[in-house]
Amino acid sequence: MSKLKVGILGATGTVGQRFVQLLSAHPWFEIAYLAASERSAGKPYAEACNWKLSTPMPERVRSMIVEEPEPGTFDGPVVFSGLTGDVAGPVEEAFAKAGYAVVSNASSHRMDPDVPLLIPEINPEHLQLIKPQLERRGWKGFIVTNPNCSTIALCLALAPLERAFGVEKVFVVTMQAVSGAGYPGVPSLDVLGNLIPHIPKEERKIEEETRKIFGRVVGAEGAIEPHPMRLSAQTTRVPVLEGHTETVFVQLREEAPIDEVKRAMREFRALPQELGLPSAPGRPVVVLEAEDRPQPRLDSELEGGMATVVGRVRPCPLTSVKFVLLGHNTIRGAAGAAILNAELLKAQGYVP
Amino acid sequence: MSKLKVGILGATGTVGQRFVQLLSAHPWFEIAYLAASERSAGKPYAEACNWKLSTPMPERVRSMIVEEPEPGTFDGPVVFSGLTGDVAGPVEEAFAKAGYAVVSNASSHRMDPDVPLLIPEINPEHLQLIKPQLERRGWKGFIVTNPNCSTIALCLALAPLERAFGVEKVFVVTMQAVSGAGYPGVPSLDVLGNLIPHIPKEERKIEEETRKIFGRVVGAEGAIEPHPMRLSAQTTRVPVLEGHTETVFVQLREEAPIDEVKRAMREFRALPQELGLPSAPGRPVVVLEAEDRPQPRLDSELEGGMATVVGRVRPCPLTSVKFVLLGHNTIRGAAGAAILNAELLKAQGYVP
Amino acid sequence: MSKLKVGILGATGTVGQRFVQLLSAHPWFEIAYLAASERSAGKPYAEACNWKLSTPMPERVRSMIVEEPEPGTFDGPVVFSGLTGDVAGPVEEAFAKAGYAVVSNASSHRMDPDVPLLIPEINPEHLQLIKPQLERRGWKGFIVTNPNCSTIALCLALAPLERAFGVEKVFVVTMQAVSGAGYPGVPSLDVLGNLIPHIPKEERKIEEETRKIFGRVVGAEGAIEPHPMRLSAQTTRVPVLEGHTETVFVQLREEAPIDEVKRAMREFRALPQELGLPSAPGRPVVVLEAEDRPQPRLDSELEGGMATVVGRVRPCPLTSVKFVLLGHNTIRGAAGAAILNAELLKAQGYVP
Amino acid sequence: MSKLKVGILGATGTVGQRFVQLLSAHPWFEIAYLAASERSAGKPYAEACNWKLSTPMPERVRSMIVEEPEPGTFDGPVVFSGLTGDVAGPVEEAFAKAGYAVVSNASSHRMDPDVPLLIPEINPEHLQLIKPQLERRGWKGFIVTNPNCSTIALCLALAPLERAFGVEKVFVVTMQAVSGAGYPGVPSLDVLGNLIPHIPKEERKIEEETRKIFGRVVGAEGAIEPHPMRLSAQTTRVPVLEGHTETVFVQLREEAPIDEVKRAMREFRALPQELGLPSAPGRPVVVLEAEDRPQPRLDSELEGGMATVVGRVRPCPLTSVKFVLLGHNTIRGAAGAAILNAELLKAQGYVP
Repeated sequence: MSKLKVGILGATGTVGQRFVQLLSAHPWFEIAYLAASERSAGKPYAEACNWKLSTPMPERVRSMIVEEPEPGTFDGPVVFSGLTGDVAGPVEEAFAKAGYAVVSNASSHRMDPDVPLLIPEINPEHLQLIKPQLERRGWKGFIVTNPNCSTIALCLALAPLERAFGVEKVFVVTMQAVSGAGYPGVPSLDVLGNLIPHIPKEERKIEEETRKIFGRVVGAEGAIEPHPMRLSAQTTRVPVLEGHTETVFVQLREEAPIDEVKRAMREFRALPQELGLPSAPGRPVVVLEAEDRPQPRLDSELEGGMATVVGRVRPCPLTSVKFVLLGHNTIRGAAGAAILNAELLKAQGYVP
Repeated sequence: MSKLKVGILGATGTVGQRFVQLLSAHPWFEIAYLAASERSAGKPYAEACNWKLSTPMPERVRSMIVEEPEPGTFDGPVVFSGLTGDVAGPVEEAFAKAGYAVVSNASSHRMDPDVPLLIPEINPEHLQLIKPQLERRGWKGFIVTNPNCSTIALCLALAPLERAFGVEKVFVVTMQAVSGAGYPGVPSLDVLGNLIPHIPKEERKIEEETRKIFGRVVGAEGAIEPHPMRLSAQTTRVPVLEGHTETVFVQLREEAPIDEVKRAMREFRALPQELGLPSAPGRPVVVLEAEDRPQPRLDSELEGGMATVVGRVRPCPLTSVKFVLLGHNTIRGAAGAAILNAELLKAQGYVP
Repeated sequence: MSKLKVGILGATGTVGQRFVQLLSAHPWFEIAYLAASERSAGKPYAEACNWKLSTPMPERVRSMIVEEPEPGTFDGPVVFSGLTGDVAGPVEEAFAKAGYAVVSNASSHRMDPDVPLLIPEINPEHLQLIKPQLERRGWKGFIVTNPNCSTIALCLALAPLERAFGVEKVFVVTMQAVSGAGYPGVPSLDVLGNLIPHIPKEERKIEEETRKIFGRVVGAEGAIEPHPMRLSAQTTRVPVLEGHTETVFVQLREEAPIDEVKRAMREFRALPQELGLPSAPGRPVVVLEAEDRPQPRLDSELEGGMATVVGRVRPCPLTSVKFVLLGHNTIRGAAGAAILNAELLKAQGYVP
Repeated sequence: MSKLKVGILGATGTVGQRFVQLLSAHPWFEIAYLAASERSAGKPYAEACNWKLSTPMPERVRSMIVEEPEPGTFDGPVVFSGLTGDVAGPVEEAFAKAGYAVVSNASSHRMDPDVPLLIPEINPEHLQLIKPQLERRGWKGFIVTNPNCSTIALCLALAPLERAFGVEKVFVVTMQAVSGAGYPGVPSLDVLGNLIPHIPKEERKIEEETRKIFGRVVGAEGAIEPHPMRLSAQTTRVPVLEGHTETVFVQLREEAPIDEVKRAMREFRALPQELGLPSAPGRPVVVLEAEDRPQPRLDSELEGGMATVVGRVRPCPLTSVKFVLLGHNTIRGAAGAAILNAELLKAQGYVP
């Protein structure tokens, strides 16, 4: 089987580089198109991109010429979008209109009522929105998005709880890595030996996206009814490179002993695991028992960075349970999430 | 007026150094006695102590000989204890028995029913416990303690809320500086570019101490009835040098608009301010309006490190209000807290 | 005596903030004019400036309106320039032409043959260049510069060696703080848990500026003949906030025992100390004996950040002596250096 | 071919963990014996060892019981020593006496006249010392050592220069990672946002070991005549996790254009490459052209952490050439070095 040709929008940025890294060894997909801003266009990728990952830039892409993000030059069916929220909107729409399956990590369309905000382990049925999206917008292609990096890590940990016991309330405080802010991102003068208790728009994203993700598809024209769980988030930036840590307090609908809670997390498997999608983590939720884990530097790359790693699961005096979770923010929190979404699209026939 | 002679137990440690620094310029107290472990005893302080503060070691103490912590050699009325929790217990008792006022930062006696766990802005009336303590134990002196570093910062922020509206529930997640673990403390291999989601015993201290601090003195023999508020804490260690940051969600007994909440915090004054105690912060609670503050590196030293700095006060979808607070963990969270306690003891005649 | 009115060009930047901080408490000077880029102009300083120092913004400047850097609006005799090298050139010239004494920290004019590159402890006689500068350029005012931050720290340590023994060769490797790169400066993604072995143009600045600073004024028209010492520098950026550390190997013209070398450094005093200039450090070179000092976090602020702190002075198997030095890069390495220069200008009658 | 059984002394420490990690996937060797201090003895490795690497502890060793380091219980021919210098001496001797080939990373025996201080790319002929060592000491086994972590990285970069042009003088300033100090090692309070310009004994190690490594075997009884090159080192500790950076100035015996210098480095190959030893890096010296590389976080793992990575090779105004180098301190600088030594021993028949 020949590989499916894919493109990357925003290929030179922090998320774009992860797309390049992860897709270069992908069994189903092959990078055939790299697009970035005007400043990079026309240059070989090796020259346009200030590569910041500790694995070397893949040989294959070094000489590929970076193009401006315009539909037409590339004929493959899928483009991944690593664009930042401020520019993604119209570019992604142009590609969707032109017939591409746009698999986006950007925030621009996440809360659009007809755009799936997809976590394949949780809401694969939200792909039903694609049909009404095509119809309503009159496009030949469509847009599918993945959640914000801190939202996705949280949702993976909540999913087994929701399935087994129901989730009513969630308090979450995040300690997020600097790579989540892209490049150049957070100035070292701000964050060295310091922390910043504010990440613009992040708290609202967590509170809103989570309810959409766990929502139900309702009605003929496929709208999402948000899940009734209630959330309150506080987000901070800490001097960590990769891996968002989140401390969580959860009120379950149905109380459960801690062992049951851990077991639900540990045994959680879902559609991507059943389908054997190439990027699906064997264990979507990894539960650690050591009292001082998870730690971002030591545990972010478990399951290839595609799982949420949970630790310190214990009773809470005020809710049902409290715990600490960790997600790799540029793998499962960004590029890896989009790639898993594309794998599900392919497995379910939404792309050829 | 000649100054009151004071001693310092554990004078060479992280907290001990802060005692030395803060007391060297104190208007009421004069360091007359420095004690530390066997290893240091007999040496001049300049040699015994691996000074780690960025202000120079005060000239006066450089040649003072460090002694072993035994009552008798020093005749002043007050000893401050910067001992660690594992050794403080019996040493402090020996000094109290011998007639000293032991003003301790150690955890050993904090939860003893007859020992005040004092924050002068909040519970000065807990000094009533001293009399029954003397009687019950048959000591000539007594022990007064200050809370754990993260507890004290939290309580200062809660105090105006409790006074104005009542506090029912508190969720708190801390991001604590490495100086809170003493020296050598946290290995750099553990915390560089990382965070550790566990500080031994810290969560229980926050949950229990807070209820004692806000408790009422009841009965003839002066026991403390804990406050009925309920707390749930999660604590983490982050690569920050000084300043514990805490994100807090508070359920008030009586709901209040955000402006009222901020005003209560801003206008909060209490006994230490009325008495004009030398170490009392002008504003026990400083409220910042910038959306990305407080930050430990920039804001810890406001009010000389003696205040709790609060920011991002905003409504919470799940409780009444959420905010971020910051306390200087080795000043108001340790040595400075004990010194303010000693000032109150003197102002109220508990020491000559 | 009323204070001399001074202005600050680039007042909102990293160096500009230090100017504001240091000048707000200055006994001779008073801030009367704040200028910055178009983006800031017209706003009160408190609003235009993203204040990053851990002492609060001085009250006096908060409401001062920031102006565009154009001569005329301000009638005081002195402007300090904290502009970056890419924009400083023409702006500083315009102010000098209009009659101001421009005391600059920028690199633009440092190597101009008729512009003093001044360290008051080393080459106060270079102020003789001002007269020919005025004549040749036909200006009513003039420009005086201070060296690059790493150069100045090095030169202060070399000065007593040059005076006592002569300096022939210098190898220097720097480990420079991130504040030296301004704001936003070095991205945290680049420098967290990392170091960057390259600072653009820095090595040439050290090698060239040092020779000019130690050079002789020759000829009627006042040119500087560079000192014949030879230097080789390697510069790196490290995750430190303030304080440039430099490891140095020096070949003296006349060999000297280590004790003599240290004594020469310790006893070094010069014109600013004799004149008692307000910002002159009591000891321009502080020599530490502890084998693990100086350290940027602990020792940068000795002598108010105006000294070079030297440690580990020891024989070198390949040259005469090797040692480690530390300089506060935004005080003596920038704003403080310029202020000391202005003080010398005033003391010697170059400004009214 | 069945694998050779090997043991690890000091198996629970920082270097010991690297041995475990690297040997678990080794094609020739198989871990059959884990020894550590009394405190760990008797426990399964998973319990005895506070694993600090970001790859998981290999399954195979988790249940292996850690023993006290005494010869006899283990019958394999090779033990690797990751012991610290203060305890290694007698333990290693006991094992050598009992007939084991002791392949040591410890400093205790490095400078013994009859013990090879081996870098297989540079001085494989030093293995001639083994015979006289056996005879003189009357042992059944022997000790072979690898150099100190910063020495080995330096020597690999010097080797091609020595071979092609001769090396006369070397100035080196190191910026060393905290992992080089073991665990708990450097306290975070000391090194966060700071650097420490002193590493005990490190400078002498670099200066002395290098001359032995490049020395000649002379005389019938096989002594090493040190190489006449002269070195001067200054060493510092920086807040970096892995990867020692070194800035170097080299005086060559025969001057050479920079391109020749780089070519010599790039094309350098030696015995381990010829023999195809499993841990031999394809390129012992990697030369980077980007002006801001090498960087420890990005480049330490090139060639599996077994190469020295060099950058910024350029002319020096005072010597022939200056450059920056980087070595992975716990792979090529410790465990990996010893493993490559053992591979050479096996390839040359010193072990069965």
